Amino acid sequence: MNERLILVTNDDGYSSKGFAAAIEVARGFGRVVGVAPETPQSGMSQAITMNAPLFLRRVREEEGLTVYALSGTPVDCVKMAFDHLLREQRVDLVISGINHGSNSAVNVLYSGTMGAAIEGSFYGCPSVGLSVDDHSPDADFEAAVAWGRRIVGDLLSHEIELPLCLNVNVPVGKPSEIRGMRLCRQNRGFWREDFFRREDPRGREYFWLTGEFVDGEPGAADTDERALAEGYVAVVPVQVDLTDYRQLGKLADILK
Amino acid sequence: MNERLILVTNDDGYSSKGFAAAIEVARGFGRVVGVAPETPQSGMSQAITMNAPLFLRRVREEEGLTVYALSGTPVDCVKMAFDHLLREQRVDLVISGINHGSNSAVNVLYSGTMGAAIEGSFYGCPSVGLSVDDHSPDADFEAAVAWGRRIVGDLLSHEIELPLCLNVNVPVGKPSEIRGMRLCRQNRGFWREDFFRREDPRGREYFWLTGEFVDGEPGAADTDERALAEGYVAVVPVQVDLTDYRQLGKLADILK
Repeated sequence: MNERLILVTNDDGYSSKGFAAAIEVARGFGRVVGVAPETPQSGMSQAITMNAPLFLRRVREEEGLTVYALSGTPVDCVKMAFDHLLREQRVDLVISGINHGSNSAVNVLYSGTMGAAIEGSFYGCPSVGLSVDDHSPDADFEAAVAWGRRIVGDLLSHEIELPLCLNVNVPVGKPSEIRGMRLCRQNRGFWREDFFRREDPRGREYFWLTGEFVDGEPGAADTDERALAEGYVAVVPVQVDLTDYRQLGKLADILK
Repeated sequence: MNERLILVTNDDGYSSKGFAAAIEVARGFGRVVGVAPETPQSGMSQAITMNAPLFLRRVREEEGLTVYALSGTPVDCVKMAFDHLLREQRVDLVISGINHGSNSAVNVLYSGTMGAAIEGSFYGCPSVGLSVDDHSPDADFEAAVAWGRRIVGDLLSHEIELPLCLNVNVPVGKPSEIRGMRLCRQNRGFWREDFFRREDPRGREYFWLTGEFVDGEPGAADTDERALAEGYVAVVPVQVDLTDYRQLGKLADILK
């Protein structure tokens, strides 16, 4: 029997609660290899480390599970897994997460969790980014684990057309409070930022990025934001052709 | 007369040659404010700084030009410009670059230059990412400056439908060697990575990310890769709805 191999990664670091929860999702489906950053990498998007060397260490080894910590970004972790650690092996699925805080709408662009999930899909296997719409340090991952298992089970038991990358966001709540799952499109929201200004002990001014998410289309029924707001798990399939085909025709008259 | 205001940013840092070249593109179209990272930020994608404070300092001030350095990512620079430095002002256009190395094909996803350009387009003005298909430290920016000026001039003299973000890649060569400009779509290429392995003086193994770009559709006539290879400036309009609409229908039978 060919045992399945699942790669698990994360953007909050190898010691985070969400990474442990993602490993929990993966176990039961096969052998699990986890590669996660040494340090929290929230908001790292699809970043790669170009100007520094990467250090890799094995931090956990038990029956059916090996976990590594890497001194890089979430995308570095995925590359290290596919191009070095698992180079000769067939990986059946990638799970990235479980993230504290939703990666719905435009957040998919800034998210290290989704950066890693997207990267995973480049290597020819289905890839799932899992997030919980809860930023609290003691966020409850129970519902996300349950829905993650269900989705992974569905993907592994069907013929899937590749590439496939899913952005899965789970509302706050106990499993019994989740109303179901919806396939959605990405909401066109954006962030209205603000900067906290403070002074350090030497009188130098510094800033903390902060901000407020603005739902760009609150009336739309088919978006991930709406599904989450109504208590549903939001599933958006993600692709990476950023070409703005709508503009392509219009620009022919402008750029000559 | 309302003088135009152009924001210029970059991912190689405020002291880079490419940033100076982008400022050269912008001057002549109006007042220029530059905000660039303190340190090189290649490969930073759409990353934002969530877990550290940001320090901002003014590094240059002359007639029609103010330049700041920020201890953050390219996207942080854009947010700092719009949400703090220029909060009450109307910005007419954003230029990000000029990058050493092309950001065609899937490189748009990893690129700090394009991360900043995309971010700029969220703020309601046209945005242009400029790159030269040349990684050498003494890359010649002359052709990119000339084409950048031409494109910016076209954008500022026409009614543009927003959002608009352009990924502009200029081939290696003197201005006279460039064959023209092509509107293209993003090539479906990918990176086949490898990791250099070395040992530090204490015997610890470390890795350097390296790799080779693979053109996923070398036969296609309408891609940015092809345009560059044939000596044309490649212009791809970029958008950020990552929804994979093709998969959306198919998944309804799989995820229930």
